[in-house]
Amino acid sequence: MTRIAVFISGRGSNLQALIDARARGDLAGDIGVVVSSRTGAPGLERARKAGLHHCVVEPADHASREAFDAELDRVAKQTGCGLICLAGFMRILTPGFAQAWRDRILNIHPALLPAFPGTDCHRRVLDSGVMITGCTVHFVRPQVDAGPIIAQAAVPVLPGDDEKSLADRVLVAEHRIYPLALDLVLQGRVRVIEERVVVDAPVRSDDMLVNPAP
Amino acid sequence: MTRIAVFISGRGSNLQALIDARARGDLAGDIGVVVSSRTGAPGLERARKAGLHHCVVEPADHASREAFDAELDRVAKQTGCGLICLAGFMRILTPGFAQAWRDRILNIHPALLPAFPGTDCHRRVLDSGVMITGCTVHFVRPQVDAGPIIAQAAVPVLPGDDEKSLADRVLVAEHRIYPLALDLVLQGRVRVIEERVVVDAPVRSDDMLVNPAP
Repeated sequence: MTRIAVFISGRGSNLQALIDARARGDLAGDIGVVVSSRTGAPGLERARKAGLHHCVVEPADHASREAFDAELDRVAKQTGCGLICLAGFMRILTPGFAQAWRDRILNIHPALLPAFPGTDCHRRVLDSGVMITGCTVHFVRPQVDAGPIIAQAAVPVLPGDDEKSLADRVLVAEHRIYPLALDLVLQGRVRVIEERVVVDAPVRSDDMLVNPAP
Repeated sequence: MTRIAVFISGRGSNLQALIDARARGDLAGDIGVVVSSRTGAPGLERARKAGLHHCVVEPADHASREAFDAELDRVAKQTGCGLICLAGFMRILTPGFAQAWRDRILNIHPALLPAFPGTDCHRRVLDSGVMITGCTVHFVRPQVDAGPIIAQAAVPVLPGDDEKSLADRVLVAEHRIYPLALDLVLQGRVRVIEERVVVDAPVRSDDMLVNPAP
């Protein structure tokens, strides 16, 4: 059974979605460790409640990005993890780390990549006037918010939306597709060929198109 | 009743969607003229069958882009049109024309702008590995495939898709949202404020999220 290291920095709502999926039996792997880049991140409490091994690795305690990433690598390996899930992890990994864990680090981004990469994307979505946004699970590459796409969901932007209401609606989709995508990877049904994902599984389009709550 | 000039270059399938919407009573305007930039475009036959005034304005018959656009302008005005719909029109309008008809030219683009502007977008969608694409109705600006967005629909990219199968699926969504967006504009329910569209109408998210045929 593959073990997963989940890297967080904040509330860890996507961590919770993974914990819940595991509890339901919908994840073909175990969460081996939860690593927070910030002391007191609320997500650590979720890990504790779920009885998961967890720890803090703070950038300030390390002399360089490389040293910080080396510690992340050490923790992941020490806990027997073969896969890393970024879940609101607010640090950019070094190219060396991304290369060492190539096709074994997943990230979720709250927009329909390649549109709106980077931080603060709900604000930019609202400013742009687009009517559809969404979220994307992808393998991590040294470039920020780039890499082969494993799953996406579309979410409507509605009149009167602010960043909070839009983020909340997108989060519903994130919590749906992150466990689905991770499970496909854990089952060995995802291959990367020429930097594109090939999934050996039927795609359910109803997982990709998320209507707002009625 | 506002009259609409529809500019085409090819088969005119979106023209047909507008003709059909008008026949159903779902369009608060009339098609005043269909203009093709290409002699023998199959869309002209659709116009003829629908009893619509139609003509050909070919770039080769005009000394400059400005002269070509001046003829388009003359035809639209002569037929009493107050709105222009681009429907597979393969010519880029001059900035002067776009400015003269500002907020009175609509275009439909077969991708989820701002992602994948330009031609050949289904090919680029497939090459990129995204799992969701769609289509966008927007007001035309001098920049290609830019301008305030009136309506969008999301469409899944499915395993095994080629350009043809993907284009066909996106076309279903195009034929749905182009008449909807045009009708909102014709009803005066669409305003452009600071380059964003504000629609005085409830948004039906089921119009924005298009599942493939079952």
